[in-house]
Amino acid sequence: MALRGTSQDQDFDALFIKDIHDYALTESSMYDWLAYLTTECKGRLAGSDNAEKAVAYTKSIMDTLHFSSTSLQPCTVNKWDRGDKESVRINWGDYTRYEDQYRQLNVLSLGNSVGTGDDPVTAEVIEVQGLDDVEALGREKIEGKIVFYNRAMDPTQLRTFNAYGGAVDQRVHGASKAAEYGGVGAIVRSMTLREDDHPHTGTMVYKEEFAKVPNLAISTNDANFLSEILIGEKVMMTIENDCKPGGEAISYNVIGEIIGSEYPDEIIVIGGHLDAWDVGAGAHDDGAGCVHSLGVIEILNGVGYKPKRTIRCVMFMNEENGLAGGKEYARVSNEKGEYHLAALESDAGGFVPRGFSFDGHTDVLKPFYARVSKWLPLLESYGLYFTTGGSGADIGPLKSQKGLLIGLRPDSQRYFDYHHTTIDQLDAVNKRELELGAAAMTSLIYLIDKYGLE
Amino acid sequence: MALRGTSQDQDFDALFIKDIHDYALTESSMYDWLAYLTTECKGRLAGSDNAEKAVAYTKSIMDTLHFSSTSLQPCTVNKWDRGDKESVRINWGDYTRYEDQYRQLNVLSLGNSVGTGDDPVTAEVIEVQGLDDVEALGREKIEGKIVFYNRAMDPTQLRTFNAYGGAVDQRVHGASKAAEYGGVGAIVRSMTLREDDHPHTGTMVYKEEFAKVPNLAISTNDANFLSEILIGEKVMMTIENDCKPGGEAISYNVIGEIIGSEYPDEIIVIGGHLDAWDVGAGAHDDGAGCVHSLGVIEILNGVGYKPKRTIRCVMFMNEENGLAGGKEYARVSNEKGEYHLAALESDAGGFVPRGFSFDGHTDVLKPFYARVSKWLPLLESYGLYFTTGGSGADIGPLKSQKGLLIGLRPDSQRYFDYHHTTIDQLDAVNKRELELGAAAMTSLIYLIDKYGLE
Repeated sequence: MALRGTSQDQDFDALFIKDIHDYALTESSMYDWLAYLTTECKGRLAGSDNAEKAVAYTKSIMDTLHFSSTSLQPCTVNKWDRGDKESVRINWGDYTRYEDQYRQLNVLSLGNSVGTGDDPVTAEVIEVQGLDDVEALGREKIEGKIVFYNRAMDPTQLRTFNAYGGAVDQRVHGASKAAEYGGVGAIVRSMTLREDDHPHTGTMVYKEEFAKVPNLAISTNDANFLSEILIGEKVMMTIENDCKPGGEAISYNVIGEIIGSEYPDEIIVIGGHLDAWDVGAGAHDDGAGCVHSLGVIEILNGVGYKPKRTIRCVMFMNEENGLAGGKEYARVSNEKGEYHLAALESDAGGFVPRGFSFDGHTDVLKPFYARVSKWLPLLESYGLYFTTGGSGADIGPLKSQKGLLIGLRPDSQRYFDYHHTTIDQLDAVNKRELELGAAAMTSLIYLIDKYGLE
Repeated sequence: MALRGTSQDQDFDALFIKDIHDYALTESSMYDWLAYLTTECKGRLAGSDNAEKAVAYTKSIMDTLHFSSTSLQPCTVNKWDRGDKESVRINWGDYTRYEDQYRQLNVLSLGNSVGTGDDPVTAEVIEVQGLDDVEALGREKIEGKIVFYNRAMDPTQLRTFNAYGGAVDQRVHGASKAAEYGGVGAIVRSMTLREDDHPHTGTMVYKEEFAKVPNLAISTNDANFLSEILIGEKVMMTIENDCKPGGEAISYNVIGEIIGSEYPDEIIVIGGHLDAWDVGAGAHDDGAGCVHSLGVIEILNGVGYKPKRTIRCVMFMNEENGLAGGKEYARVSNEKGEYHLAALESDAGGFVPRGFSFDGHTDVLKPFYARVSKWLPLLESYGLYFTTGGSGADIGPLKSQKGLLIGLRPDSQRYFDYHHTTIDQLDAVNKRELELGAAAMTSLIYLIDKYGLE
C-alpha cells in the first residue's frame, strides 16, 4: 500500500488528473447547462423571475448528479429595478443652432441608483479623475454640477482585476462623494480596458448622510468624446432614468451535498453565484462559475471518485448587489458549528484557467498554502500556477472558520470586455476553455479531499 | 559596470521588460495595422490582388519604423483559384419521395484541389477514419465512391496544434489515397474541435501517379449528420466545384532591416506570413503574426533600444500553399553566406502568449536552449514557459545555418475555431492579447540581442 506522498501516489494522481481533464473535455454537460442559463434565465438579478428560473433549473440539474441531498436555502435579497428609461444627453457650444452639438450617450444606470423619474436633471458637467479630485475642487466647483468620473483602468496591469480594483471606487462611491459637495448627479467611465460603445453596469452604494443623486455608467468611447469636448467647451448634460429600489424578496442559494465517506465533518464547498446583472446573459459573470461548480461534481461522478470529505456545491444568490446568499450561507453554517476545510469559488469568468489564488485566516494560510504547494508539480503541466491573494466574494464570510479559501484564476485579459454588459453572452465563452476551468477545479478538489490539508 | 549575468543586470532587464510590456499595452499601433490588413487586404492568398495590397501596406508601415532599409524580395508563387461554385449535396433513402432526404452541406474546396467543372461527380459515400482505412478496405470497397474522412481531432490534447497534427493527414493526402483505390472524390471533416457550421479550408497535395479527384472540407456539424445517416442508409453525394490552379505569379517577402551596432553579421529574424486563405480575413492566421513582428520593431523603437545585432522583420509570402517565401528567403541568405543567430516566427494566432518553443540543428539546440533557459525567471512572471518543439514553417528552411529557431506559443484553445474559415476576422482578436504576444516576443529578442547565445 502506498503511503501519502510517495512517488507511486504521485504517479496515480497524475493519471487521475489526466482522467479528470479527459472527461471534462469529452463528456461534460457544462456548455449545455450554460446555454440554458444564458438563454432561458438571462438577466437573473436577485429577486427577478429569471433568477427564480435559474434557481429551479440548477436545482433540477443537481437532482441528476447523485448528491446525497439537494436543497434550497432561503435568503432575503434587496431588489432593484432598472425601469424603462435611461438616457443621458449632452449639449455644448451654441447648441441651439447646430444639430451636431447635441449627443445621446450610451449609458446604463448603476445598480442601487435612484432615478430622476419625471424630473430630469440638467446641469453642467465637470470632469474629475477620482474621488480625491472632488474633495480638492470643493463645493465651489462641484455644487450644482454633474460629476463625470473619468479615470481609466490602468492598461499596464497584467491582471485586469487589479486594474478594475484601481478604478472601481469611482463607480461605487462617486455619487455620494459628488453629493457631499453639492453635485446633482454622477456619471462614470465604464469599467473596461476596451474602447467601445458598451456601457458597463455594476453596483454602487449611497452614504445615508448625503443626498441620493442619479448615477450611471457611460461607454468608454463616449467618455473619451465627452472628455475631448470638455477641453474647450461648457457641456450641459440631461439625465433621465427611472430605476428604483424594488423592496425585499426571498430568494435562494441552491445547495447539493455529498456526505464524505471518512471525514463527513470536514466540508469542502465549491461555488459560483447564480445571479447576474439584468442587462446581459451572465455567461462569464457568473454562469461560468455556476456550471464550473456543477461540472466538478459531474466530473467526479464521471471518473468514479467517492469523496472522503463532505463536498457541497453551492449556487450563491445575490452576489452582485448585496451578497445576501454568501452571508446567509456562512451564518447558517456558523450557527450549526460546521467546519469548512476549504472553499473554492469560480467568479472570474469561463476563460482558460491559469491557476488558483489562496486566502485564509492568518492562523492557517501559511501552513495550508505550504501543503497545497506540494501539489503544484501535478498541475503545472496544465499551465496552472498557485499564488496567495483574494478568493471569492461569496465564500469570504467563511474565513472565520479557518479553512482555506480559494479563487479560480482564469486568464483575465478578456473578462472586462464583457463584465456587466449586454454582450456577456454564451458566444463569448469558449467551450474548451470552460471545460478546462472545471477540470482544474476538480483536480485541486480531488487532492484536497484525498489528502486533507494537515 | 555590471558584468553579464550579475544581479544588477537582472534588475535592469526586469525593469526593461516591464517597459516593453507597458509600451505594448499603451502605445502600440498593432491593432490598427491588423484592422487594415483584415478589412482592406482580406483573403490575401499568394498571387491575389489583396496579397499585393498587403505587400504594399506592410512595406509602407515598415517605412515609418526607422529601419536601416526596407525591401521587397521576389518569389515565384503558385496561384490557385477557388472559382465561383462549390457545392456538395447528399441524398439518401427513398429520396425521390421525401424532401428532407436531400441536403446541401456546408463546404469549402481545399487549396490545390481540382474542380469538377461542368461535370459534377455523383457517387455513393463511404466513411473512413483515416488513410489506413482506405488501404484496409481496398479497391473493392473504394472504387467508384466518394471517400468521407471523418476522424475528429482529439479533444483530450491540451495543445490543440497536437490534435490538428493528428488529423490533418486526411486533409492533405486523403484525395490521392482515395484515388489510389479508385475513389472518385474525397471530402474531409473540417479541422476544428468545435461542432459548428463553418467549413475549414487548407492545403492538400496530389501524388502525381494517381488521378486528381475533387477534394473539399465539410463542417463538423455536417460531418456528424452525414455519419449518422450512413449508419442505416446508402447515401449518394454530388460534388460540383470549379476551383483550379491559376498558374505562377511573382510575389514578395517584405523585409525591414536594422543593421546591428556591434555584431552586424549575426542576424536575428522576426516574422509572420502575409498570405492568408481566400475565404477569411486572416486575422489570427497570420495577420496577428505579421503585426506582432512589426510590433516588436515599434516597441524596440518606443523604448529606445538600439540593437547590437542585425534585426530583420520579414513578412513571408505563400506559407499557406507552397512556402515559396520562406524557401526563397533561406536560399538567398545561404547564397550570401549569412548567419542567422536566431529566427522567431509568430504563426499560432493573436491569443494570450503562453511561451516559446525552441528548435534548431542538433549541433546547437542543447547549448542554445540551456542559454535561453537562464532567462526564464525574467519571463515567468508574465505567465510564459519555455519548451523544445517546433518553431515556424517559414523559418524552418534556415535550420542549416545552425541558429536558434523559435515559435511563439499563444494559448491554443480557440485557434482552430477560426483557422482557415470565413470567421477569422478582426473581432476574433482581442487587442490586449495581441499586444501581450508582441511584448513577449520583444522581451526575448531583447535578451538574445543583448547577450547573444554563447
